[in-house]
Amino acid sequence: MSTMRIESDSMGQIEVPADKYWGAQTQRSIDNFPIGVDRFKWQFPIIRAMGILKKSAALANGELGQLPEPLLAPIVQAADEVVTGLLNQHFPLVVFQTGSGTQSNMNANEVIANRAIEIMGGVLGSKVPVHPNDHVNCGQSSNDTFPTAMHIAVVSELLQTLFPKVTELRNTLAHKADLFNLVVKTGRTHLQDATPITLGQEIGSWVAQIDYSLATLETMMAGLYDLAIGGTAVGTGLNAHPRFGEVCAGHIAAITGFPFRSSSNKFFSLSAHDALVSTSAALRTLAGALLKIANDVRWLASGPRCGIGEIKIPENEPGSSIMPGKVNPTQCEALSMVCVQVFGNDAATAFAGSQGNFQLNVYKPVMVHNVLESIGLLGDACQAFNLHCAVGIEPDYAVIQRNLDNNLMLVTALNQHIGYDKAAKIAKAALHEGKTLREVALAMGLVSGVDFDLWMDPIKMTNVK
Amino acid sequence: MSTMRIESDSMGQIEVPADKYWGAQTQRSIDNFPIGVDRFKWQFPIIRAMGILKKSAALANGELGQLPEPLLAPIVQAADEVVTGLLNQHFPLVVFQTGSGTQSNMNANEVIANRAIEIMGGVLGSKVPVHPNDHVNCGQSSNDTFPTAMHIAVVSELLQTLFPKVTELRNTLAHKADLFNLVVKTGRTHLQDATPITLGQEIGSWVAQIDYSLATLETMMAGLYDLAIGGTAVGTGLNAHPRFGEVCAGHIAAITGFPFRSSSNKFFSLSAHDALVSTSAALRTLAGALLKIANDVRWLASGPRCGIGEIKIPENEPGSSIMPGKVNPTQCEALSMVCVQVFGNDAATAFAGSQGNFQLNVYKPVMVHNVLESIGLLGDACQAFNLHCAVGIEPDYAVIQRNLDNNLMLVTALNQHIGYDKAAKIAKAALHEGKTLREVALAMGLVSGVDFDLWMDPIKMTNVK
Amino acid sequence: MSTMRIESDSMGQIEVPADKYWGAQTQRSIDNFPIGVDRFKWQFPIIRAMGILKKSAALANGELGQLPEPLLAPIVQAADEVVTGLLNQHFPLVVFQTGSGTQSNMNANEVIANRAIEIMGGVLGSKVPVHPNDHVNCGQSSNDTFPTAMHIAVVSELLQTLFPKVTELRNTLAHKADLFNLVVKTGRTHLQDATPITLGQEIGSWVAQIDYSLATLETMMAGLYDLAIGGTAVGTGLNAHPRFGEVCAGHIAAITGFPFRSSSNKFFSLSAHDALVSTSAALRTLAGALLKIANDVRWLASGPRCGIGEIKIPENEPGSSIMPGKVNPTQCEALSMVCVQVFGNDAATAFAGSQGNFQLNVYKPVMVHNVLESIGLLGDACQAFNLHCAVGIEPDYAVIQRNLDNNLMLVTALNQHIGYDKAAKIAKAALHEGKTLREVALAMGLVSGVDFDLWMDPIKMTNVK
Amino acid sequence: MSTMRIESDSMGQIEVPADKYWGAQTQRSIDNFPIGVDRFKWQFPIIRAMGILKKSAALANGELGQLPEPLLAPIVQAADEVVTGLLNQHFPLVVFQTGSGTQSNMNANEVIANRAIEIMGGVLGSKVPVHPNDHVNCGQSSNDTFPTAMHIAVVSELLQTLFPKVTELRNTLAHKADLFNLVVKTGRTHLQDATPITLGQEIGSWVAQIDYSLATLETMMAGLYDLAIGGTAVGTGLNAHPRFGEVCAGHIAAITGFPFRSSSNKFFSLSAHDALVSTSAALRTLAGALLKIANDVRWLASGPRCGIGEIKIPENEPGSSIMPGKVNPTQCEALSMVCVQVFGNDAATAFAGSQGNFQLNVYKPVMVHNVLESIGLLGDACQAFNLHCAVGIEPDYAVIQRNLDNNLMLVTALNQHIGYDKAAKIAKAALHEGKTLREVALAMGLVSGVDFDLWMDPIKMTNVK
Repeated sequence: MSTMRIESDSMGQIEVPADKYWGAQTQRSIDNFPIGVDRFKWQFPIIRAMGILKKSAALANGELGQLPEPLLAPIVQAADEVVTGLLNQHFPLVVFQTGSGTQSNMNANEVIANRAIEIMGGVLGSKVPVHPNDHVNCGQSSNDTFPTAMHIAVVSELLQTLFPKVTELRNTLAHKADLFNLVVKTGRTHLQDATPITLGQEIGSWVAQIDYSLATLETMMAGLYDLAIGGTAVGTGLNAHPRFGEVCAGHIAAITGFPFRSSSNKFFSLSAHDALVSTSAALRTLAGALLKIANDVRWLASGPRCGIGEIKIPENEPGSSIMPGKVNPTQCEALSMVCVQVFGNDAATAFAGSQGNFQLNVYKPVMVHNVLESIGLLGDACQAFNLHCAVGIEPDYAVIQRNLDNNLMLVTALNQHIGYDKAAKIAKAALHEGKTLREVALAMGLVSGVDFDLWMDPIKMTNVK
Repeated sequence: MSTMRIESDSMGQIEVPADKYWGAQTQRSIDNFPIGVDRFKWQFPIIRAMGILKKSAALANGELGQLPEPLLAPIVQAADEVVTGLLNQHFPLVVFQTGSGTQSNMNANEVIANRAIEIMGGVLGSKVPVHPNDHVNCGQSSNDTFPTAMHIAVVSELLQTLFPKVTELRNTLAHKADLFNLVVKTGRTHLQDATPITLGQEIGSWVAQIDYSLATLETMMAGLYDLAIGGTAVGTGLNAHPRFGEVCAGHIAAITGFPFRSSSNKFFSLSAHDALVSTSAALRTLAGALLKIANDVRWLASGPRCGIGEIKIPENEPGSSIMPGKVNPTQCEALSMVCVQVFGNDAATAFAGSQGNFQLNVYKPVMVHNVLESIGLLGDACQAFNLHCAVGIEPDYAVIQRNLDNNLMLVTALNQHIGYDKAAKIAKAALHEGKTLREVALAMGLVSGVDFDLWMDPIKMTNVK
Repeated sequence: MSTMRIESDSMGQIEVPADKYWGAQTQRSIDNFPIGVDRFKWQFPIIRAMGILKKSAALANGELGQLPEPLLAPIVQAADEVVTGLLNQHFPLVVFQTGSGTQSNMNANEVIANRAIEIMGGVLGSKVPVHPNDHVNCGQSSNDTFPTAMHIAVVSELLQTLFPKVTELRNTLAHKADLFNLVVKTGRTHLQDATPITLGQEIGSWVAQIDYSLATLETMMAGLYDLAIGGTAVGTGLNAHPRFGEVCAGHIAAITGFPFRSSSNKFFSLSAHDALVSTSAALRTLAGALLKIANDVRWLASGPRCGIGEIKIPENEPGSSIMPGKVNPTQCEALSMVCVQVFGNDAATAFAGSQGNFQLNVYKPVMVHNVLESIGLLGDACQAFNLHCAVGIEPDYAVIQRNLDNNLMLVTALNQHIGYDKAAKIAKAALHEGKTLREVALAMGLVSGVDFDLWMDPIKMTNVK
Repeated sequence: MSTMRIESDSMGQIEVPADKYWGAQTQRSIDNFPIGVDRFKWQFPIIRAMGILKKSAALANGELGQLPEPLLAPIVQAADEVVTGLLNQHFPLVVFQTGSGTQSNMNANEVIANRAIEIMGGVLGSKVPVHPNDHVNCGQSSNDTFPTAMHIAVVSELLQTLFPKVTELRNTLAHKADLFNLVVKTGRTHLQDATPITLGQEIGSWVAQIDYSLATLETMMAGLYDLAIGGTAVGTGLNAHPRFGEVCAGHIAAITGFPFRSSSNKFFSLSAHDALVSTSAALRTLAGALLKIANDVRWLASGPRCGIGEIKIPENEPGSSIMPGKVNPTQCEALSMVCVQVFGNDAATAFAGSQGNFQLNVYKPVMVHNVLESIGLLGDACQAFNLHCAVGIEPDYAVIQRNLDNNLMLVTALNQHIGYDKAAKIAKAALHEGKTLREVALAMGLVSGVDFDLWMDPIKMTNVK
């Protein structure tokens, strides 16, 4: 068992593990919020974002003369260690804590202060020469730092994780759309046979959905470039240098490479997280699109003999513990389960986003948690779906042709020549008599064989380019 | 244009249409809440419930000596006219008003007071001899009357409208399940061919879902029998006779025939509407079940030639304005749209239910509106789905047999005789070589023809009773 | 009772009311979908949009030589009558019908055809010389017309109804923010007293939320400018002139004055309604913002004597049927009920949006219904809230000053001078001893009276500009 | 790095870590579903439930003569080791896998088979003498085992974790309600001052909400006692002994001590999880209740000087990194964040529950995951809220008395004596003239001082018992 040391805060003294950098307030949070400890500790994206923020704040305060010069380098070094993940074990707190994220802000302040003290040869917990509030948190409040870290974390995960993984799937599908651009097949509306399309057109609409979702996500994410930093406790910027927010945001932008900037209304940035709600909604739209795609894939691959069966997908594992030889569209299932999870996470996020009061919304941790979870899951699921399913999608040409040959809705091509009503008569007769359109059309004397063959050309009906 | 008369309340005087019974407060609500006027006026179930409540309150106050005796009969007569719908045009208010429903309570008080005044030969708007607050609202507050009316309305609509309509659908399906109990067909899991079931078993699981939902609804509805009446303003029952709640609830029970009773905790009944939230959730469960059923029906009926096509459903109308002869599963679609609406309504209801403060939840009108809307839509949609779809469901025996003959998962019957691994080999070979299970099994020497035919009996595999 | 005439379609003959222009398919829908008839008939925005579309289609087909010349003027005239609302009574169908909106498309086709026939002196129901499918629906399918009408309706309602009404509220609040820009008051975070802000800053953050929401809505709405028209049955454009979509969209843009255009991927436009889902999400964000605002207003106005009471809002009506003289924040309540309704409607919309299959999403009617309902309710509620509440918001200067004088968090201004830890000591002592900060600070010898008065200047602490 | 051994399944051979018991199918799942690996591995409740199930299945098969006798003891021993948690490290799979949970069922089959083989001195991976499918999975399918394990896990967590923790909170509040039963205070409706209640009555309504939620949860949970086991692949029970489901359920009941039983309709139990959706809804109702309670607590404790401040709650940690001495209602915040998470989880669960097709719902893992997460979080949060907040709730008698003295709504007591209209006049005058009710009432000559003091007795107005 680890030995303990004493840390203190305005509530008094408390024991903390001697081998950890955290201080009194972190310890109190551990003790007071044992909620979902196994699964809800902050993951690296938030810790890293806190490190980036604290580094940027120190640099800004240094430039603006708010921080004793000798403290700057040690604080920056400690913050850098947070950024690189070296100090992950010193961030033990969970999502379900104070709604402002104060305790996680203090966790960062305490860890960086103690680590900087250590670098400077001081005594852990002494707050000398580096004080967690007066120095590491200089010109800041949890109320502006935590939402700033939220934005940094979400933008980073979107751009570095989600976009690349989803784009890979999108590119696979676009490639398939090209490849199968001329594979004519039965279209389906209302689940019923409809006029022909090509498999490339069908897959292309999936690509268009992903493209739309990614563009929407990009647009909504732009609101996250506006940072709360500089607003301090209630948005007024009390105790921060007037230029602090702007300079700090500049450093954050420089470190991350993303166009972060100081928000033009800090009151808004503390009391509402509407850009995060919008980002969550865009993730939901993406999830909705992916659910449609996953469903289309599994239905098109349904069978092997008693379903639609127009495409084949990879057989990755035995599908059943009881039915020998069964293979299931498991990647579609995993992806679709992720999609419903994203819907749920979005519901939680939007609900939380509506519950702000006065100068603060105190649902910050749960909001960023849900958005980050959705990002992570969507990224992973798209990657797996791409590698283990999408890349292996192939047409079953025999089934496609058989279905196309049987498709009564080709009759639509006759509308322009004989009118809707007569065409309807042909289709109905063919269906009820179990005949082909051609047989019926000729028998009814409505079309000549030559005309029929000229007009009834599936590939022409698709207008494929 | 109608002539006007003057009504007054504690805010002062105001003009109201001379031909309407409503008074000052109703008029103020009309003027102040022009929100969704075309679609969100209270419908009859709430108006009727208000009438039942006011009649019961008058009777109870009469019994308990709280109401001047000569006023009783006229008030009861006026309330009865509300109950029968005679005065519907005097209830002009919308859902989106004060969150306690005060204005609708006052609407009822004013209409009944004025109508009773009229009956007694008095002057409309004079509040003499019948005062809307002191007499019609005697021993009551909006805070206990409106939730009481909510419960009366919801219970009545559930029992008189929803249950009969859903039960009719349930019975149709149960009948079909019996009828097709021995129709063996391909089972499907993961959308992939699985071991056989009978069509009766398949439909029977829909019946079981409906039965479960109705039982749940009945259980959750029981919470609505507890009435807030008697709690008055904050739950303490101030200004009501101590026995008023109990006696009034007794009259409500007698009038409706449902086992309403006085709630054992009036503070709870005013500040929370958890029984309504639970009822909404049960409606959502029903909607989820119906969505599954509607989806199964349309997928099983998909085709006519390029889908699964194992059942036929009625052709009710042309399906397409461009594709001649197309028929679509439109009843499934209408029902499934209702189902997603119910999900949305439930989300609104549960959200609203969580937003109470202190002694009152001020989302009462929007909560009851959503629950009533869901009830109405589910009832109507089940009725239409039953009449125009379910009653006409028929197996397509030829397709069912063809699919069953092709179904490789019949191989599962061999597990017990040759083990899972060998059975898997047979199924895979049959699939990839395009052969039947029998051909492959015999060729591999794993089973004799006699054994194969003995073991591989689809109807036996279903264990149908 | 109205006399009847015979109409027919590919299903056969059916009676329709003689005084109505609709035909067989509309009548079948009336008969088959008696779902929510009282409240769910399509309202004018959808009918009007259908009229605009049909007029534009006729003009485009005329230009492209697809329509017999003599039919053009009568069809355009009939469509114009639809646009102006003259024929509203001929649109009897409800939301819960076929999921493609086919029956409403046919309703438009039938009404316009019959009206054009009448103009041309023909016989209603004869389909001569104007055929509902071959002429009015020329080059179209429900699958591209209905989503086109959806976009026209939603964009029009947003721009013509929602934006003006919400902007009015926004402007009122912006004016109040200016007016009260220097009214220093207690800030609040976690519902606890925090450092000071001005009432103008507080209200300004509401303005910023509305601005954000409107900007988001405008961005998301842009996706609705892309029209499905030209895609016909499955997105291929079968039976439409190759330039039809583009020319028709041009006419729609010209008629409406909005920058509608032909979608670049019609398969996407039929099978997914992601732009509508995004628009719904933006409405939800607006609702979330308005809920926060409504809550802030009612909490700030809470009292009159036992709440926060820092602002006064108009007294519009008696608040209670039992508590004399009670006045409630009813406009906040109506608005917040609308907000939770919008959350529910959005949940339904997003759910529906995820349920497309293959070439069509068959939840179109329920999606557009929910979005239009949300638009209408938000517009109405913002207008009422503005007129009957926001315009009347006034500070209660006495309460504000008393609270500010008591606010211990002014101590934060001392951080920079004496450090966080000592400042905390002062605040805690003041709270527990029931003293003022000044008393305690001086007694502790931590600050001189002169410095205290210099540093502790609430208006300076707000950094107000 | 660990050495590897070869395992095989119907797909062929694959390497697995030599020190793990899992086999080929588990390994394939690891490789194919790297989704949320850090946070979404199955936690112990599901693993334990699988162990209980497999033990019960072996015992049942033993009794029914379906398992070679020598295999029984080793399989039971291995399953027991799963139940006790000894083999947790051999369960590496995540939630987002195949939607039937097949891979987790096979994980259990493989681990138990290999461990039993080891016990019997065989070679890991040899499937001799214990085969994962033929023996451990004997008479079972993933389609019936996984939902059975879901029910076991959820019921166990509800009864062993959630109920005790929530009940503890409930009991604390009930104790407080008793304790403060006679503390008269201002009631509040619409956030506005209302007639008096006692603090005990106020807290008692929270208790009633919790009681209602727990009762509902218990009712809904009853549906989970019905187990799918015995249904095998599609519900028909193919390959299981006819009495297997019943006997196996009996063992599960005996092991757990809960009244599990064989479901009466296995088709229902595989294709729908409506009892789980209902349980999720009941958790949502509980969350809605807790949100209301948490909100009431923090509002009542708001201040310390500029809020309502009628109760005091424990000061557990510094509330602000910038505002010295600030203390926040952080336990309320953590609890309320958990509540919105539960709303989100419920939305995901209900969505998933609606998406079944034919004989299987393939959203099983995501459904049970969300329900278990909600249970865990609610339990933890209630426990923390109880210990660190509820137990410390105390009235601030001075504030309560001051507010009560100022409360104009006491005027309601006059209604019965002077009528609503005159009472309203008094209240309005008092408010606008800043006087007491007594002053105004006497000045207006409406009441005598003696009567006023007699009627206007706050504690009598509460009707407290």
